[in-house]
Amino acid sequence: MRDPKPEIPAAAVGSRAPDTIETLRAQIDSLDTELVSLLARRREVVERVARVKRENDLPASHPAREEDLISARRVQAAAVGLDPDYIEDLFRTVLRNSRVGQLDTLSRRGVRPGARVLIVGGRGGMGGFFSRWFIQSDYQVRILDREDWDQVEALAAGIDLCLLAVPIDVTPAVAARIAPHLPRECLLADITSLKREPVNAMLSAHAGPVLGLHPLFGPATKTMDRQIVVVSPGRDPRRGQWLLDQLTVWGNVLVRTSPEEHDETMGVVQALRHFATFTFGRFLHARRVPIMRTLELSSPIYRLELVMVGRLFAQDPALYAEIIFATPERVALLKDYLQSLQRNLELLERVDKAEFVDRFREIADWFGPFGEQAMRESSFLVEKLVHRYKDLP
Amino acid sequence: MRDPKPEIPAAAVGSRAPDTIETLRAQIDSLDTELVSLLARRREVVERVARVKRENDLPASHPAREEDLISARRVQAAAVGLDPDYIEDLFRTVLRNSRVGQLDTLSRRGVRPGARVLIVGGRGGMGGFFSRWFIQSDYQVRILDREDWDQVEALAAGIDLCLLAVPIDVTPAVAARIAPHLPRECLLADITSLKREPVNAMLSAHAGPVLGLHPLFGPATKTMDRQIVVVSPGRDPRRGQWLLDQLTVWGNVLVRTSPEEHDETMGVVQALRHFATFTFGRFLHARRVPIMRTLELSSPIYRLELVMVGRLFAQDPALYAEIIFATPERVALLKDYLQSLQRNLELLERVDKAEFVDRFREIADWFGPFGEQAMRESSFLVEKLVHRYKDLP
Repeated sequence: MRDPKPEIPAAAVGSRAPDTIETLRAQIDSLDTELVSLLARRREVVERVARVKRENDLPASHPAREEDLISARRVQAAAVGLDPDYIEDLFRTVLRNSRVGQLDTLSRRGVRPGARVLIVGGRGGMGGFFSRWFIQSDYQVRILDREDWDQVEALAAGIDLCLLAVPIDVTPAVAARIAPHLPRECLLADITSLKREPVNAMLSAHAGPVLGLHPLFGPATKTMDRQIVVVSPGRDPRRGQWLLDQLTVWGNVLVRTSPEEHDETMGVVQALRHFATFTFGRFLHARRVPIMRTLELSSPIYRLELVMVGRLFAQDPALYAEIIFATPERVALLKDYLQSLQRNLELLERVDKAEFVDRFREIADWFGPFGEQAMRESSFLVEKLVHRYKDLP
Repeated sequence: MRDPKPEIPAAAVGSRAPDTIETLRAQIDSLDTELVSLLARRREVVERVARVKRENDLPASHPAREEDLISARRVQAAAVGLDPDYIEDLFRTVLRNSRVGQLDTLSRRGVRPGARVLIVGGRGGMGGFFSRWFIQSDYQVRILDREDWDQVEALAAGIDLCLLAVPIDVTPAVAARIAPHLPRECLLADITSLKREPVNAMLSAHAGPVLGLHPLFGPATKTMDRQIVVVSPGRDPRRGQWLLDQLTVWGNVLVRTSPEEHDETMGVVQALRHFATFTFGRFLHARRVPIMRTLELSSPIYRLELVMVGRLFAQDPALYAEIIFATPERVALLKDYLQSLQRNLELLERVDKAEFVDRFREIADWFGPFGEQAMRESSFLVEKLVHRYKDLP
């Protein structure tokens, strides 16, 4: 803790005594205290805005208003000799905080409060996550987990939504098992990370409305603010609309795709990328590369790359096994990847720099504007990483 | 632009009229204006601190003081009902800005002002970068580039430091060529991304002090604040100390290593990682994976991984060819990597989930505490990435 500050009148500091580190620090502390007080007052006003919006059913955030506010602060910053980027950075943080605050109060609104929701697998990670959100939005939530099948009749009676939150490999079987117990009008939906098989299974087991969902986040997510949910329509989309509206109210961004496109894309997004990372980690292990020492000798960009490898191995292997071996198409894609890598051996055998540069350019051209965008994004992140470490004692 | 705000006395807003979005926004704008004014006053005081420090030759940043300040603000935040993490985040930004400000004024100090520095390759990216920093710190800087060899006698006369800033593959030859012209006491140093060959070449060509350096950053870096420079001693370290002190004053963190350890580690840190990324990008290209569409269907973590791939291809292929094919050992390492990947084919052929899980656990155990650390770091970055996109309209 800091020593108690001596009470020095501001005027005395300015006029008589020369600046000392101590008196200047006391001034900084008092300015900082004032800053936090202002932020608390700001938060109060923001909460009143949220209340007015709630009463008038207005949307939580309005990007145009935010950009406008940022522009005004940038102009002011330049006028008083501060770096506009710095002030923008700061106000982005302030706005983020006020948005989360608004969501706290807004996002609970139920689109169809009182509707009966049965969550199959509701005691698992994602099942529990959705169960909490539905409860907060005044739905009547029931849970069906492995040990509850003897009560399936009672649990499924009169429900409006049956949400399957069970592992990929059992989703089709669970769909077939639950369907005979569902009311005809009940919406049947799943949140599995594959879509073709589960959606087909739901369609053939249930005659009513069907909706395939894939939330691209885990149960540790605090808010759903701008999290992506992939939506693969099954049957009778009009009658699944309220669930999509509910996801939107909770803050999610919905991206529509066919089950086929979804699965093909996820093969690359999830399986291929994770598998490539796995094989890289396996090689580091086989070579017994001294990780911690290499980190000391690393630029932030390598640190960032190695962190992505370490992250994989800090997670549940069963989950990754499930993703990687999910379908025969996926396994074929990964084999193709391993085999295609052998083409790079030739470059190495021949130490062919010119060929390497040619291939590199060809790929760079194909990436097109993504390359430049990736450069900007990764630089932004590297800067965040550098600063994270700078800020440690 | 926002419409001009109506002038509403604050009291009137509070007492009579009910809150409207417009009046509340006007209040937020005035609080925000006040925030920026406070930050400007804070900056003035920080500049006075920098001046006092400069006059008394005190170090720029004092991590303990910063942590202390953060703690005090967290306590205040909790007391006024704000999220302490939010306030910490905000003050980290404020402190970073004030540190950069202090460095602006502090970092120029020359450890040996007036000393004569010859930069070979001084018109290249990194050569130009160091030339600007030496000039700012009141050194007498001379440049020797490709077309200046006819003036080498005059340029090398009486110099205190000869810094080689030329491409890896010519560094040993340039060392041999310049050495006969150097004063006996002159420090000969290089900034190449290999160390064994260049340091050996400098040692055999020059009888005076020799120092190998490898700055882990590019010429686009704005400050050297906490950037890493790897130091591989060559000969007579006492007489190279002033250069290391200068790097420290500029803000760099120095990490010492033998040339051999340096090169082996960089084989993994630079060559292996870049090569793995190259082969991944090559596969995406061969499969014509629709990058932009996969990004729309991606979680932030995949976005982060793909961004690292895109980043590579946005850069200079010749630089990567140089790094990847730098030494025969390095090429052997990369071949070994490609061959070792074939072991993973077996997992896929047999669709052996259990074996996958076993290998995964083994690697995770070997990573040890790094896994958990990587998880924290990557989550921090993913959050930054999500927020970056949240903040766009």
